[in-house]
Amino acid sequence: MRASRRLRWLVLAIACTAPAAGRAEDGYELWLRYRPVPDTVRLARYRAALRQVMVAGDSPTLRAAREELTRGLRGLLDRDTPFFDSASGEGALLVGTPRGSPAIAGLGLAADLGRAGEEGFVIRSVMAAGRRATVVAANTDLGVLHGVFRFLQLLQTQQPIESLSMVEAPRLRYRVLDHWDNLDRTVERGYAGFSLWDWQKLPDWRSPRYTDYARANASIGINGTVLTNVNADATSLTPDWLAKARALAEVFRPYGIRVYLTARFSAPIEIGGLKTADPQDAAVREWWKAKADEIYRLIPDFGGFLVKANSEGQPGPQDYGRSHADGANLLAEAVAPHGGVVMWRAFVYSHEVPEDRAKQAYDEFKPLDGRFRPNVLLQVKNGPVDFQPREPFHPLFGAMPRTPLMLELQITKEYLGFATHLVYLGPLFEEALRADTHARGAGSLVSKVIDGSLEGHASGGMAGVANIGTDRNWCGSAFDCANWYAFGRLAWDPSRGSEAIADSWLRMTFGNDAALVEPVKAMMLGSREAAVDYMTPLGLHHLMARGHHYGPGPWVSGGERPDWTSVYYHRADANGIGFDRTASGSNAVGQYFPEVARVFGDPRQVPPQYLLWFHHLPWDHRLASGRTLWEELVARYYAGVETVRRMQASWRSLEGKLDAERYHQVATFLEIQEREARWWRDACVLYFQTFSRREIPPQYERPQHTLEEYMAIRSRYVPGSREQP
Amino acid sequence: MRASRRLRWLVLAIACTAPAAGRAEDGYELWLRYRPVPDTVRLARYRAALRQVMVAGDSPTLRAAREELTRGLRGLLDRDTPFFDSASGEGALLVGTPRGSPAIAGLGLAADLGRAGEEGFVIRSVMAAGRRATVVAANTDLGVLHGVFRFLQLLQTQQPIESLSMVEAPRLRYRVLDHWDNLDRTVERGYAGFSLWDWQKLPDWRSPRYTDYARANASIGINGTVLTNVNADATSLTPDWLAKARALAEVFRPYGIRVYLTARFSAPIEIGGLKTADPQDAAVREWWKAKADEIYRLIPDFGGFLVKANSEGQPGPQDYGRSHADGANLLAEAVAPHGGVVMWRAFVYSHEVPEDRAKQAYDEFKPLDGRFRPNVLLQVKNGPVDFQPREPFHPLFGAMPRTPLMLELQITKEYLGFATHLVYLGPLFEEALRADTHARGAGSLVSKVIDGSLEGHASGGMAGVANIGTDRNWCGSAFDCANWYAFGRLAWDPSRGSEAIADSWLRMTFGNDAALVEPVKAMMLGSREAAVDYMTPLGLHHLMARGHHYGPGPWVSGGERPDWTSVYYHRADANGIGFDRTASGSNAVGQYFPEVARVFGDPRQVPPQYLLWFHHLPWDHRLASGRTLWEELVARYYAGVETVRRMQASWRSLEGKLDAERYHQVATFLEIQEREARWWRDACVLYFQTFSRREIPPQYERPQHTLEEYMAIRSRYVPGSREQP
Repeated sequence: MRASRRLRWLVLAIACTAPAAGRAEDGYELWLRYRPVPDTVRLARYRAALRQVMVAGDSPTLRAAREELTRGLRGLLDRDTPFFDSASGEGALLVGTPRGSPAIAGLGLAADLGRAGEEGFVIRSVMAAGRRATVVAANTDLGVLHGVFRFLQLLQTQQPIESLSMVEAPRLRYRVLDHWDNLDRTVERGYAGFSLWDWQKLPDWRSPRYTDYARANASIGINGTVLTNVNADATSLTPDWLAKARALAEVFRPYGIRVYLTARFSAPIEIGGLKTADPQDAAVREWWKAKADEIYRLIPDFGGFLVKANSEGQPGPQDYGRSHADGANLLAEAVAPHGGVVMWRAFVYSHEVPEDRAKQAYDEFKPLDGRFRPNVLLQVKNGPVDFQPREPFHPLFGAMPRTPLMLELQITKEYLGFATHLVYLGPLFEEALRADTHARGAGSLVSKVIDGSLEGHASGGMAGVANIGTDRNWCGSAFDCANWYAFGRLAWDPSRGSEAIADSWLRMTFGNDAALVEPVKAMMLGSREAAVDYMTPLGLHHLMARGHHYGPGPWVSGGERPDWTSVYYHRADANGIGFDRTASGSNAVGQYFPEVARVFGDPRQVPPQYLLWFHHLPWDHRLASGRTLWEELVARYYAGVETVRRMQASWRSLEGKLDAERYHQVATFLEIQEREARWWRDACVLYFQTFSRREIPPQYERPQHTLEEYMAIRSRYVPGSREQP
Repeated sequence: MRASRRLRWLVLAIACTAPAAGRAEDGYELWLRYRPVPDTVRLARYRAALRQVMVAGDSPTLRAAREELTRGLRGLLDRDTPFFDSASGEGALLVGTPRGSPAIAGLGLAADLGRAGEEGFVIRSVMAAGRRATVVAANTDLGVLHGVFRFLQLLQTQQPIESLSMVEAPRLRYRVLDHWDNLDRTVERGYAGFSLWDWQKLPDWRSPRYTDYARANASIGINGTVLTNVNADATSLTPDWLAKARALAEVFRPYGIRVYLTARFSAPIEIGGLKTADPQDAAVREWWKAKADEIYRLIPDFGGFLVKANSEGQPGPQDYGRSHADGANLLAEAVAPHGGVVMWRAFVYSHEVPEDRAKQAYDEFKPLDGRFRPNVLLQVKNGPVDFQPREPFHPLFGAMPRTPLMLELQITKEYLGFATHLVYLGPLFEEALRADTHARGAGSLVSKVIDGSLEGHASGGMAGVANIGTDRNWCGSAFDCANWYAFGRLAWDPSRGSEAIADSWLRMTFGNDAALVEPVKAMMLGSREAAVDYMTPLGLHHLMARGHHYGPGPWVSGGERPDWTSVYYHRADANGIGFDRTASGSNAVGQYFPEVARVFGDPRQVPPQYLLWFHHLPWDHRLASGRTLWEELVARYYAGVETVRRMQASWRSLEGKLDAERYHQVATFLEIQEREARWWRDACVLYFQTFSRREIPPQYERPQHTLEEYMAIRSRYVPGSREQP
């Protein structure tokens, strides 16, 4: 019986490792490639330490752990490692929970396990029955799975495993991907093909790719996924579609990934047949309660709702004169009995409101602090405008002490060159997490706001707008997968450094050869600053083309609403450039705590990367660099292009050091990036020159085209944006 | 020099075989899997006969042939076979043209090569310099490539190769896939994901998948691809997009695949800035000539234009009071100097015209016979309505002796269950090709019309509306790939039998095990008739849901136009059912040649599968089967479902005889098919019962739901159709 079950697992494991046997470097395997350890000494050490494996107990999650170990060890150790129900002899890997295994319970890990919590794990080199062994232990099966992935990562990155002593637990409770996937499988701001969710074939057909999606997420600790677009369609809450969501939830469940859905606030009218969606209306409240009950009958561990309300045309409580708190509490009340949460987006601004768009979310939500039900999380973007290449941190962080907050980051590169620009977002995420709000004095970091520690909240989290699609390599380019990976690692541990994350991702994705890892790491770490320089240096923002945001459009003006134009943000004129957000302007600086406001509000103190975000300054304003503002602006635009060219050169120097398939694709994408960086630089410099009336210093190459030619460019059928043919 | 080039080829070959090394049966490899020959005796024979390979000469096409041989022989023979520039010793495979190789020129193949033409080939077992060898020879490099694919197919299907003597040449000149792919990558009537063409990354990034697409097409002799939707967008003719088409053309060129584009008739206005698109307008003619010149500068072997004009809202010559001939000749004149053609679709019908839609194309085009320029091909669908599960042949076949015709088939299963229904279209294609028009007496088959032999035209061809998309397995399901394959094989040789085609496809796709091949072949061969039975038996047609065509909608009526409803076609009433197309009705039969008209026009002579296409008959009309029409109709609907259930049973009996991955997907899709077949059966029987007022005979299971419940079903976000959210 036990033997036959063991056999079944091996068969399972073999079946599911077959794909990994493919050595095509098409990116499908992501960072879970499990190639044989090339260093023979290290390989011998690993083999000696891993002669046998015991995974104690049986559950879908432990089966997943067992399959991953089988797959991973076969690949890394280039041999099959025997699995037993009880370990004996030197070099055993003991995997499980104390509850599931006396052997593990006997190892005296209680203290460590106490720190591992519900999702964490302990990895320890131990003596078991007088023999050297390695243990991966946790309090829950999910913790075991997380530990297995981390243990395999140690081997993938060629760490010594002789004297391990690790305890890990996630600092954030909600670590969620937001898929802006529409029900027709188009993806808003998606640049990696189309939605993974093949709705038409669901619930019957469960593509093996759904399982690989769950594996990848579990391997970096992500524990939730919002399947649908925040610009929501009530159809996703109808029975037919809930059955499809249920099928996905069943695939994801063993991997600890909970399913969430976006809730269209007007759903009670659109699919409920009610006359209103007013949160104070009893029938509306009943409808949401019944809908929640229906969902939880199908998906017992349903995560809850993500809501975008009264923003960019979405319906919401204000349509009925109610507040965002009233709206959020309506849904929170419905899911509360089931342990669900509501993630309510703070990304709201109105074109009736003349106020600086950067201030509106704060003005809207600050007064509501304390008015939300406990199972509401307020989801706040990293910056006050909209996922720009660089923004100062959002003033709501630290400003809502009585409300648990989530940080919303955009992994998909809507404003950062789509799939083809090599831009590693680790440093951007790190910058956001390490920003100091001073809410409770120095050291009141955004990361401490969202992990709940600053104000003593039990929950908080991070949401990342997914960059995942049907493209074979998942994200459109190899390097965009690093952004998915970095998001997950930082959501698990916000104090982790983006350089260390790049290092481990590179080793798992391209191998451990330092001659490859080091130069590519340098490319990655400099790439985000390069994009800021060739797109929006010195605190400039939102200069991109209208609607699809592909390419430069600093001249964009007019149209539906001023805060959807570029001129609204850069405010360039004959006197100078920049958005005065000091007391003499919109006074957005006033939304920050005094220590921060003082720095941001003073052109001499504000970090140069935020200069024009907060200040309108004369073209001849002298900067610390000794250059005038105009000279500095031009210098940054040209420096951005130069960095891309250096990236090209260092990538070319690696030809032959990696597979031709990925080498060639990245080389091609870098050519696109260099061309588009010049496009950005030349279009912006020429445009701003019409105000500054100053020369491009002679040391710089001249723009290739005239401003008129750049302004005449019309891009059509740009991915990620809806165009009606 | 020669040595180093040889080395380079080997490296190339190795690089490009890497993907094939993946043994995941995800369907990506299609029928080019090249698994090792399991039969050791046969393997030994093959190895003995193939000790060395000589591919004489060098060109992109010969390099492709060499790479395919390297990949194929490594896989099939499970060893590396040495390539030399000149062969010596026993067991050589000699590949090339007489022009490129004295060795091949010396083999006395002149007579055979005379029959091989420009694209064909000779495969012969010969004695070369006193030693046994096998030769794959052709007059052109492309012929060589086709021969190499056919030779590898002999090994894949385990044919003896000791005494080969084959000469093949395509019977049709134009063998083209029509992609109904939009520029936003959605695919009209596409059920395999989205468009392969990643326009945003083109022309820079040329996905390796484009090469695999070309390989698959070349392996079955397809020689053209129309990249864009017949519901055309003039944007595809702008310089930016032509550069993208050029990149694809450059990838496809070595494989003999020419690129075509759809031409929107109003393009001179939309992108040319002209006031008119009138074919008689000199500026319009100039514009098209200049546009053609521009295209041919970029794509010297550009195939030409495919045009849908004055049909379903598309612009066309009739907007200016000109004829379809005037419109076609306008474009034909522009591409003629470059050797291009115009494929002009006969699929036209107007909602101003009250006439039976089935008659309109004939009425429109018959009078134009002889008025087209010689480089115009009239593209006629297999039947007079629109790709129904079954239609009689189109009356235009044989009716346009002075115009070269192309047969348009739909490979994508718009009306045949989308991707999840197992419906092998080989028999449908065969039925269309073997239909006897009697244009020049008995034996005037449609196949002889389109190969030009009936009227002595030099050209003609077949177009297939592609079922290819971004899904990993290309077509959405393994068995839909058989339809792509069958289309190619029949376009090369219309006299080929669909059973033989199914046999070779199965062996290459699933292996040569007779215990698998025979039962699955039986499933395939019965599958189309099953679909006819559970959807539209006895000549019924166009009963599907409105717009997206997913599921039954026999009750569809009203709306934009009568000929887009179901009631227009089935005409069921208390007296009976069927469309009277005899002299007493629309007299569509009168469009056929007398011998055919006599049969179709007589309810006692017409084949039962066309009965209700041509006749409105009483419910109690007695059929040859002895059953009444009502009884027969019900019997067919139930028989269709029963056949699907038998398919399920025989597939289940194969569990373990093939890889779990494909077994499981097909098993799941068969469940969907069985459920949807019942949906069709019950909805149609219950609906027609409201007219017949007769019982469902007691031996049959009762419908699961009421007619009202079936009529209430609303499918949303159905693939292949545009729905505005």
